[in-house]
Amino acid sequence: MHSKKINLRFTIAQQNKKQNDVLEKIVSLAKRKGFVFQSSEIYGGLNGCWDYGPLGVELLKNIKEEWWKFMTYREDVEGLDASILMHPRVWEASGHVENFTDPMIDCKNCKARYRLDTLEEGISEKKKEHALKDFEEALKIGDQLKLEKFESIKNEISDLSEIFTKVLENKEIAFDLLAHTGCPNCGVKGSFTEPRQFNLMFRTFIGPVEKEGNAVYLRPETAQGIFVNFLNVQNASRQKLPFGIAQIGKAFRNEINTKNFLFRTREFEQMEMQYFVKPGDDKKYYDQWKAARLEWFKSLGMTPEKLRYHDHPKDKLAHYAKEATDIEYLFPFGWGEIEGIHNRTNFDLGRHEEYSGKSMKYFDEEAKEKYIPFIIETSAGASRSFMAFLIDSYAEEEVNGELRVVMRFHPKIAPIKAAIFPLVNKDGMPEISREIEADLRPFMRVFYDDKGAIGRRYRRQDEAGTPFCITVDTQTLEDQTVTVRERDSMEQTRVNKKELLGYILEKMR
Amino acid sequence: MHSKKINLRFTIAQQNKKQNDVLEKIVSLAKRKGFVFQSSEIYGGLNGCWDYGPLGVELLKNIKEEWWKFMTYREDVEGLDASILMHPRVWEASGHVENFTDPMIDCKNCKARYRLDTLEEGISEKKKEHALKDFEEALKIGDQLKLEKFESIKNEISDLSEIFTKVLENKEIAFDLLAHTGCPNCGVKGSFTEPRQFNLMFRTFIGPVEKEGNAVYLRPETAQGIFVNFLNVQNASRQKLPFGIAQIGKAFRNEINTKNFLFRTREFEQMEMQYFVKPGDDKKYYDQWKAARLEWFKSLGMTPEKLRYHDHPKDKLAHYAKEATDIEYLFPFGWGEIEGIHNRTNFDLGRHEEYSGKSMKYFDEEAKEKYIPFIIETSAGASRSFMAFLIDSYAEEEVNGELRVVMRFHPKIAPIKAAIFPLVNKDGMPEISREIEADLRPFMRVFYDDKGAIGRRYRRQDEAGTPFCITVDTQTLEDQTVTVRERDSMEQTRVNKKELLGYILEKMR
Repeated sequence: MHSKKINLRFTIAQQNKKQNDVLEKIVSLAKRKGFVFQSSEIYGGLNGCWDYGPLGVELLKNIKEEWWKFMTYREDVEGLDASILMHPRVWEASGHVENFTDPMIDCKNCKARYRLDTLEEGISEKKKEHALKDFEEALKIGDQLKLEKFESIKNEISDLSEIFTKVLENKEIAFDLLAHTGCPNCGVKGSFTEPRQFNLMFRTFIGPVEKEGNAVYLRPETAQGIFVNFLNVQNASRQKLPFGIAQIGKAFRNEINTKNFLFRTREFEQMEMQYFVKPGDDKKYYDQWKAARLEWFKSLGMTPEKLRYHDHPKDKLAHYAKEATDIEYLFPFGWGEIEGIHNRTNFDLGRHEEYSGKSMKYFDEEAKEKYIPFIIETSAGASRSFMAFLIDSYAEEEVNGELRVVMRFHPKIAPIKAAIFPLVNKDGMPEISREIEADLRPFMRVFYDDKGAIGRRYRRQDEAGTPFCITVDTQTLEDQTVTVRERDSMEQTRVNKKELLGYILEKMR
Repeated sequence: MHSKKINLRFTIAQQNKKQNDVLEKIVSLAKRKGFVFQSSEIYGGLNGCWDYGPLGVELLKNIKEEWWKFMTYREDVEGLDASILMHPRVWEASGHVENFTDPMIDCKNCKARYRLDTLEEGISEKKKEHALKDFEEALKIGDQLKLEKFESIKNEISDLSEIFTKVLENKEIAFDLLAHTGCPNCGVKGSFTEPRQFNLMFRTFIGPVEKEGNAVYLRPETAQGIFVNFLNVQNASRQKLPFGIAQIGKAFRNEINTKNFLFRTREFEQMEMQYFVKPGDDKKYYDQWKAARLEWFKSLGMTPEKLRYHDHPKDKLAHYAKEATDIEYLFPFGWGEIEGIHNRTNFDLGRHEEYSGKSMKYFDEEAKEKYIPFIIETSAGASRSFMAFLIDSYAEEEVNGELRVVMRFHPKIAPIKAAIFPLVNKDGMPEISREIEADLRPFMRVFYDDKGAIGRRYRRQDEAGTPFCITVDTQTLEDQTVTVRERDSMEQTRVNKKELLGYILEKMR
């Protein structure tokens, strides 16, 4: 079993290299074409923060707009846009002040910083084995009680990595193992600080005095803005259960290690909907939303085989959750969560009732009773969805012996919907092209390009993911038709220029 | 002249009361109907932060979307969405670390906090007169040099309030006057602290250690995100001068005194476009954008008489500006800025070149020369525009002896576009109404209401600002027509239900 694992690791390493190549290509294309830039790049960048360029901002806007339509253009869901700064008591009630922490260690030698729970990712099997051996020897000489703790772990598990992880999870002996573990960055042993809990909320101060009582936090999630507004929204909208509140907005987490491009960042955007239901109806709506949300990604063209559910086992559920699943996408670095669906029970509203002293109960007119609703949460990452769509649409093809890079965005989310080319810059073709541009522009984002060979113009639009390229040529002058070249099939159809708007709008639906 | 001023003040006071009534009514309607809630209301609220409810989020989205289309659905403007957290050097280069400050004083007695430059707003003429007299007496006994300073001010100005303000602006004697001025809140004299400069940027820390080197700021404006991305956007989009970069996003200012509902808040949203031009062309484009931006507000139905320019006099221009104007709206509390248009010269890119060490020059292919572009900025408040549209559309009318409150939003920005009512809840009317709802929903936000008398349903939609109410009645069953009632004129037109979508879309253009 051990050697099998090593073989597997070797394969994964090779695969990782290939997959990282894909990610590197996408990061590079993202910068070159204007999807994503590093934040404050001219100053060396700000770790974990990214800027969306001209194509990126359109793609992101379109994803958010599709989500908003899907989630709120229905009778039972209302929208909301709550502020990023909230009253600090909110985060006491939610449990974030106490629990939203990561265990962290520093290397005193090279100043590298690690999350204790992911430290093992950077350490080879061999080094783990050595560390465990030295650690055990030391315990044998020193501490009988700790040795017993270690042995009880060792007796239960046979896999080396798992033993290593389990020891680090045990507060009483974690530091002893760290003393024998080399820093993945500088290699020095015994250089780690003791693990300490680090709260991931960014803290700032309202008013000019930076003192405890003035502290507020940048929200680490948008959900709480929905919970605290539950009764305001219900009163204003006169909704009855079941109904939902949807919100898109930024959230911030002071991550110790940011990584994987837009996947783990310090500033990101969420698309969340909290659905309030009568206790007892929760299972039904959990299942409904779980199914609906996966379908949404597929409906926008995401590859079904790269999507899956990861149901949380009962013993790993968060303290507030009765049932939970992640919708995962197969990124180049592996499966990663892009949305979570949770049955949060009456935990959140109950806590806010307790901490605010305001009743969060709903009066059920039919049943003539008052109760705190259960909440089904669908929490999608807008930034992560953006990244998943970006990666999923990336394709390389050989066309006539040349490499074609094409972003196969669903037309609904494509940044630019149509490009308009005059075949040559004379004979009335620019004039007709400009007319077409003016006709389409009020309805969609279009791009006009009269520079370079037509093949180059196509390739530029392929990389931007533009689904339709419209060319005005000599035949246009005769019969008023233009060619519409479809991005993926590269097929060309002649369409009368008067019917162009309807033709494209129909294809976009 | 003095007595005339007092009379005027009396009139203003009466007028203020009436105007504050309007503002109070709007704040109350905003909460009741779900436009705007206080942030974290169940915890007593967070000063200077507001949440947009179900109707508010749609109105805000529509305003932002109209702006985005107007500003970026053109060949020469690209979009951007930069992160809120940026590299701290950005704010050194921009001058915010050094200069983005307000002079602040505290009352040691009651802990009230004031901006020194607006302190006089809370003090009566009579109290100012007393304070100035006592202050002058004290100087006569004590300090000849300070007395001379004061006398030189007094000799130049005759208006009492102006003398008071000018003294407070003079660092050398401001504190002496404060010593004789009562706190507007508790009335105690001599209780003010010395004025001190307070930076309005919210500060937080990246990483777990709250030390100076880890400090970052919540951006106090979105403009810098555009400046630092100038070359990235230009390279990716292959734009040539003149061209613009547009961005919508949140910004934060740690205001000492927040006030006037959404007008001065700690968290707000901006809609900014920076237009990069060749030096020498700046005057031309400044004038163009100045005109275009005012037109934009009018095109969305804002009352022309309540809009004006406030050109900044040359001697009051910001250090970076060559020319500047505010577009002001007449709020219930007076004229207030909703957008600024500035000729920022080459100041911003020049500073970023200096601080980053990266060339920010543009190569002009035609002129074969390199230079730093000039920037024409159009900076609108999304939150302030929202508030202006909210106030501007508020109307009270007497209809058949009853008060009708109606929000006269332009159909393009109205939160709900159409409401559908079955006249009675039987005879097939609900079924037809649901069909109509299903037909319209993919294209716009609609509302279905079958509760209460038809008159009450109309009134509810009037308060929400819904431009079209569609009623299915007995005649519908016979000839497939429905009534479409237009919100402002209250005129009813019979329209075939098949033509309804086209009818409404046409009216919305």
